[in-house]
Amino acid sequence: MALNIVRFTLAGTQRWGLLENQQVFPLDIDCTTTQALLEQGRETIKAAASNRADPVALDTVTLLSPITAPAKVLCQGANYRQHMIDSGMNPDEKNFNMFFTKSTAAITGPNGNIVKPRHVQLLDYEIELTLVLGKSTHGPLEITNNNLHDFVAGICIGNDVSARDVQIPQMQFHKGKSYRTFCPLGPILCLLDKDELHYLHKLQLTLTVNGERRQYDSTENLVHKPAETLTEFSQIHDFQPGDVVMTGTPSGCALGLPSAALVKLSALLPEAKKWDLFIKGQKKRPQYLKLGDRVKSTIASRDGVINLGEQIHVITGDG
Amino acid sequence: MALNIVRFTLAGTQRWGLLENQQVFPLDIDCTTTQALLEQGRETIKAAASNRADPVALDTVTLLSPITAPAKVLCQGANYRQHMIDSGMNPDEKNFNMFFTKSTAAITGPNGNIVKPRHVQLLDYEIELTLVLGKSTHGPLEITNNNLHDFVAGICIGNDVSARDVQIPQMQFHKGKSYRTFCPLGPILCLLDKDELHYLHKLQLTLTVNGERRQYDSTENLVHKPAETLTEFSQIHDFQPGDVVMTGTPSGCALGLPSAALVKLSALLPEAKKWDLFIKGQKKRPQYLKLGDRVKSTIASRDGVINLGEQIHVITGDG
Repeated sequence: MALNIVRFTLAGTQRWGLLENQQVFPLDIDCTTTQALLEQGRETIKAAASNRADPVALDTVTLLSPITAPAKVLCQGANYRQHMIDSGMNPDEKNFNMFFTKSTAAITGPNGNIVKPRHVQLLDYEIELTLVLGKSTHGPLEITNNNLHDFVAGICIGNDVSARDVQIPQMQFHKGKSYRTFCPLGPILCLLDKDELHYLHKLQLTLTVNGERRQYDSTENLVHKPAETLTEFSQIHDFQPGDVVMTGTPSGCALGLPSAALVKLSALLPEAKKWDLFIKGQKKRPQYLKLGDRVKSTIASRDGVINLGEQIHVITGDG
Repeated sequence: MALNIVRFTLAGTQRWGLLENQQVFPLDIDCTTTQALLEQGRETIKAAASNRADPVALDTVTLLSPITAPAKVLCQGANYRQHMIDSGMNPDEKNFNMFFTKSTAAITGPNGNIVKPRHVQLLDYEIELTLVLGKSTHGPLEITNNNLHDFVAGICIGNDVSARDVQIPQMQFHKGKSYRTFCPLGPILCLLDKDELHYLHKLQLTLTVNGERRQYDSTENLVHKPAETLTEFSQIHDFQPGDVVMTGTPSGCALGLPSAALVKLSALLPEAKKWDLFIKGQKKRPQYLKLGDRVKSTIASRDGVINLGEQIHVITGDG
């Protein structure tokens, strides 16, 4: 059965715990990093979970990101068909799996604030199913649904927060998606049993802003599936336990691109003019995040067996 | 005085050494990672260098990359004016410092092979001055030429090897620049004294292919200088000793873009057609690296005080 692991502070001390029925059971696991936790292996963590201490109420602890440094944050772009169309791409013309990275320093916990840097004008959200890797690897691998469980230890909610006015005009996504607090993860690191791995393809993602539903889709609509994606990532990366793969976001972001015809016409403009118009046009879209907005994300299977909890953030400024 | 540090294997053992006059003096430093080496601090390394053992001839050892994992490979794109023009960009319209990352698993030593993956058609070179960071940091920093020495421990030669047929059509640079062996570093990790830091702006970069000079420029032509670049990177990254920043490449790569007018016209084509034409056009350029080609890179100051050695690779296939 899936283990719902959380990291939290209680009386100033960082602990690992098991979350069940709104109660946190502190675990007798003595390590500070996700890497060290996962290196202990599923069986050791299960044993600790069955020797659990007395629970504390969930609302008396501060939940932290279940993912700590060191951890690579590997990302996929445009991996839901409808989101590709929304991004001005033709899914039938795209035949590659778009990879980029976010900074590890952008990781933040499942609650609290997402900080909008002063210079950022177009702050956007992207709920994403996030795979948590469990094994050290060296060299390219052939990963299939049959051996996927050897590499994927679990899953968590991720939000690939993006400064569109940096990301899009500067072309490379890394900077505009890496400001501090731009990578909320958690609350739950859900360690999956092998016979639960089929849930990767059946998870419902929901993101709301101030209670209004903005993103709502199922991982069954992922274009490039986890096994295929990890196989290709292994061509260029060695994995360590605690590394994460953010699998892309569904449609419904604030970013709205003009029609393909307009995109093509704008290609004829000088660069500076083009991006000036882009930012001016986007600023009219009320969906972009403003100070005080409340973003809530959930990921769960429809049958309720897998539930990654709730991520809730408020947008604040940096000054 | 600058210390020319190398990492090498002698009789199967990995060692750190000091390179002087084509001789390697093994150092009594007991650590395996660049991070651990640099955490010892400049003075400890200098003390080890003054207690050096008997030398061995350079040609009897195998030189390794002086940079080991863990190490982030942070990169700048289009950071020499002429290279921006060659890349179809207008330097007068670009007002940002383009950031992306390469995979740590792409790091390879200063000699041996660069492996062309079977599916890659357009293999290109990019000589780059590579900064090696020396300090753990947390949070955004204000880095100027006055405090730069607190953060930059040294420099080495880097080659940002690139699969153009992956990098350009897939838009995000990370994948096409991260295949294994696509990040040769070294041979020398040159640890700079504070009064030598001005050399960062006076280094001559030269890259040849089969003896023909392809890239030749000076770091005085860097558009975004190291202090400014590190200040901005610190907004999104915490630094660890051994992390590197590849500062971009001068003009002279194999990549050749058609005129701005053609680029704009091609924006009107369907994506698949556009990239098909791009690859067909590039394949006619004889500058792209072929199996058996020999790539040699050097970086040195004109007065000879700083000399980062020679990097020499042969292109091989992966099968």
